[in-house]
Amino acid sequence: MTEFPVPDIEDLPEDVRDRIEDETEDAGFTPNVFSAFAYRPSHFRAFFAYHDALVEHTELEREEIEMIVVAVSGANDCYYCTVAHGALLRIYADDPLLADQLAANHRAADLGESHRAMLDVAVKLTETPGKVDSADRDRLREAGFSEKALWDIASVTAFFNLSNRMSTFAGIRPNEEFHTLGR
Amino acid sequence: MTEFPVPDIEDLPEDVRDRIEDETEDAGFTPNVFSAFAYRPSHFRAFFAYHDALVEHTELEREEIEMIVVAVSGANDCYYCTVAHGALLRIYADDPLLADQLAANHRAADLGESHRAMLDVAVKLTETPGKVDSADRDRLREAGFSEKALWDIASVTAFFNLSNRMSTFAGIRPNEEFHTLGR
Amino acid sequence: MTEFPVPDIEDLPEDVRDRIEDETEDAGFTPNVFSAFAYRPSHFRAFFAYHDALVEHTELEREEIEMIVVAVSGANDCYYCTVAHGALLRIYADDPLLADQLAANHRAADLGESHRAMLDVAVKLTETPGKVDSADRDRLREAGFSEKALWDIASVTAFFNLSNRMSTFAGIRPNEEFHTLGR
Amino acid sequence: MTEFPVPDIEDLPEDVRDRIEDETEDAGFTPNVFSAFAYRPSHFRAFFAYHDALVEHTELEREEIEMIVVAVSGANDCYYCTVAHGALLRIYADDPLLADQLAANHRAADLGESHRAMLDVAVKLTETPGKVDSADRDRLREAGFSEKALWDIASVTAFFNLSNRMSTFAGIRPNEEFHTLGR
Amino acid sequence: MTEFPVPDIEDLPEDVRDRIEDETEDAGFTPNVFSAFAYRPSHFRAFFAYHDALVEHTELEREEIEMIVVAVSGANDCYYCTVAHGALLRIYADDPLLADQLAANHRAADLGESHRAMLDVAVKLTETPGKVDSADRDRLREAGFSEKALWDIASVTAFFNLSNRMSTFAGIRPNEEFHTLGR
Amino acid sequence: MTEFPVPDIEDLPEDVRDRIEDETEDAGFTPNVFSAFAYRPSHFRAFFAYHDALVEHTELEREEIEMIVVAVSGANDCYYCTVAHGALLRIYADDPLLADQLAANHRAADLGESHRAMLDVAVKLTETPGKVDSADRDRLREAGFSEKALWDIASVTAFFNLSNRMSTFAGIRPNEEFHTLGR
Repeated sequence: MTEFPVPDIEDLPEDVRDRIEDETEDAGFTPNVFSAFAYRPSHFRAFFAYHDALVEHTELEREEIEMIVVAVSGANDCYYCTVAHGALLRIYADDPLLADQLAANHRAADLGESHRAMLDVAVKLTETPGKVDSADRDRLREAGFSEKALWDIASVTAFFNLSNRMSTFAGIRPNEEFHTLGR
Repeated sequence: MTEFPVPDIEDLPEDVRDRIEDETEDAGFTPNVFSAFAYRPSHFRAFFAYHDALVEHTELEREEIEMIVVAVSGANDCYYCTVAHGALLRIYADDPLLADQLAANHRAADLGESHRAMLDVAVKLTETPGKVDSADRDRLREAGFSEKALWDIASVTAFFNLSNRMSTFAGIRPNEEFHTLGR
Repeated sequence: MTEFPVPDIEDLPEDVRDRIEDETEDAGFTPNVFSAFAYRPSHFRAFFAYHDALVEHTELEREEIEMIVVAVSGANDCYYCTVAHGALLRIYADDPLLADQLAANHRAADLGESHRAMLDVAVKLTETPGKVDSADRDRLREAGFSEKALWDIASVTAFFNLSNRMSTFAGIRPNEEFHTLGR
Repeated sequence: MTEFPVPDIEDLPEDVRDRIEDETEDAGFTPNVFSAFAYRPSHFRAFFAYHDALVEHTELEREEIEMIVVAVSGANDCYYCTVAHGALLRIYADDPLLADQLAANHRAADLGESHRAMLDVAVKLTETPGKVDSADRDRLREAGFSEKALWDIASVTAFFNLSNRMSTFAGIRPNEEFHTLGR
Repeated sequence: MTEFPVPDIEDLPEDVRDRIEDETEDAGFTPNVFSAFAYRPSHFRAFFAYHDALVEHTELEREEIEMIVVAVSGANDCYYCTVAHGALLRIYADDPLLADQLAANHRAADLGESHRAMLDVAVKLTETPGKVDSADRDRLREAGFSEKALWDIASVTAFFNLSNRMSTFAGIRPNEEFHTLGR
Repeated sequence: MTEFPVPDIEDLPEDVRDRIEDETEDAGFTPNVFSAFAYRPSHFRAFFAYHDALVEHTELEREEIEMIVVAVSGANDCYYCTVAHGALLRIYADDPLLADQLAANHRAADLGESHRAMLDVAVKLTETPGKVDSADRDRLREAGFSEKALWDIASVTAFFNLSNRMSTFAGIRPNEEFHTLGR
């Protein structure tokens, strides 16, 4: 499921093991990204703590976060993240189609204007970060997002630019369950 | 120094304030990235905890980490990170020229073969993450890097793909001190 | 389901109507690409005649054709084709996962060497047609493909470079059924 | 004249032979694309039937079709199509210079506003199909094109994205006559 | 013929006027690049002096120089330079086809291995200068070029990266004569 | 300091030697680009004569010229030019920070609107010369630049597209002094 060794769960530090067991109970299976990051326990802690901060302290709806994740992951051609977060988006948005739209091309998706602006900026910050400037921040403001929401859109985009690169480099493969969840 | 409001230090949670005061004492000034991330204290904690994990639990020398950071930040056209980490690279590598070389073009830098391979892969994972595959991992192995070092090279690259995007989006500007430190 | 008007089926020329009725009977629903192309009956005939020639006179297995279609459509960010042909690939390859892999990134898919070569060349001919030359033809020969198979790989790639552009320009949307067929 | 074998004309099915003989009589020589596609007679039929539909059932002037073909083929760096359709454009537009302008760069050509819009969209659909959306369709409408003309502009663009890829992959070379016809 | 004013020839400094008159006598017409650069006489002198140095002090055959010019100008989509130097290439190489091949795609041209290497490097130095390194110099050496020839290949490439940008920015149009000379 | 042989100064033609000695006296050291170009004396003369014309006959302030040089050289990833002209920019603009900003990303620099327009066009003409057209010239006019200034902006941009390619191909390295001058 990954190109790096996966440690035995019993050899892991207790907090890492606890987190994996909680996720497994929640999902009914252990999402492979947890097993893969356990290769480096201190990175595991940092990665999931950052993820948790992004979904807990945010001006965005959870389904908006997952919309950004899927669009960014599609732009970065990341197999793990488009599939695993595609499942989450289907569930959080209660929409069986949106994830496939965003993974293919957010410009082809059923989006209102403010979500189109949100994803245009997220994909631009992903593909050509050096070309982003105040005009992009202004576009988000005009679409109705607050300053804190601007920060949060950028943060989710930035974090999944990290996550996509780790998943691709480590060859992390999505669990089969993710391909069908919420369809 | 950033496009988002900078909170007064006395209004920050104690742990965030402590970290900022420690950094300020260490550096002789407060690096702007700390002030900027304080806008979202939970993200501040996550960001710097991840950074700390990357420099504390690693197979790489600190100067190798900073080499990756500067090359990646140059590829992403990030003003804050090329300048601030350029200063760190001059200090950790005890080399006044390498940072300017890597910020401009790692192919023009004075590098041995294994560092050239390290930076070729880091820049490829930055610019075209979807094109990275097992041949890139093999190139690093042939250059003498261990499996854990492969993970660490990818992790530093991925984290600064996050950091570059936040710095650019938030318009974080490097402190003047960074432009001359270690020259 | 498309940005252009969809004619009433009873207003269509008989051969076009017959083809649509046959497809509807076969699939249990009318794939939207048939309704969309009926806007221009002579183009409808030409488009599907070309498609039929490609799947009927070929050295490739049908599942290989669909592998090329999904990888090419993923590279071109085409929502209709990744989803509709993703369903066909699941069915013809009897594999519930391969389509999601190829739509995201053929480099992350479970492929033998000859299929990897086939898709590397198909994606290169898609993304940078002007850079294709004799070295690419030789790579396919070394992977075991015959001269006729080389022609067929290029033809399927080229045809879906047509199809992707029509689907995107016309805003053709996949039928909901395609999202789940064969999973 | 191509990297694939060219069958003897007497070995070809009668309809394919007839088409080649008609073209030869018309042009005074056999355009190499006919000889090359004869390698696969069923593909030959489909390819030229599609071409015929595009020039026979269209809202565009023939010279507009050839303008699109040359601009698209220039964007795709296709030697056969820029030269052979350059000749056709010189003849249909009765203009000795326009083809060389469009093959080099449609932005440098002598074009009215509506033809500039037509070629801007055709080249965008060629180079970055996934970035095309309703704004591009609207631009063509504002330039005065009807809905059917929009479809036709996209269809010619899409078909020559097929044709360019086949010509490049098969290494089809233009007949010498095409380089000077209509100059 | 250009977007900038063209001075009257009698208002020009004598040396500039002499050069234009010589060129006009040689060619039978005044190539528009001379009229256009006369807008800034000191730049006129510098531009043509550099050009003269490149064709007078060189290890390359004149036809090799023009091959580089046409391939580079094609890569940069420069209308003036592909057409004007296409004519020069037809004359110096005594070949009516090579210029159209190189303007479209040097990979589709009739080239021996050493000229293919020469143009691969020239086009790479044009399109992605930052990716050129010692491997590219070595490729030219292996193709049989001397050190001085390496310098000269790079110099012609670099100079026409200047020339293409001036011609495009100033909207310089080739004289009609260039479209047919040497065909 | 360069990949090509550097001739002994006493073996050089007198005018070349004089120029090198003048520069050495001015700067306190011999900038490596002079030593490197001495490999081909006639190219040396042409290169520096062009440079001199650009800085002597111009509507631009010298600091504006150096702003363009650093932004263009950053876009082309040229180590020599970003560092050597970064030093000149610090001196001519009397600003210790601007060069590092422009070398990293001109969009992150402290610029007024007209300088932002100037550098947007210079970088566009550098990265995608074929996409430049009358809209770009108009943008400069609206930013307050005269026709002659438009020509000069393009000329400096074009010349450093030459210079960057020669410096990169020849592997010219900046003198250590340039890294700190004017900081």
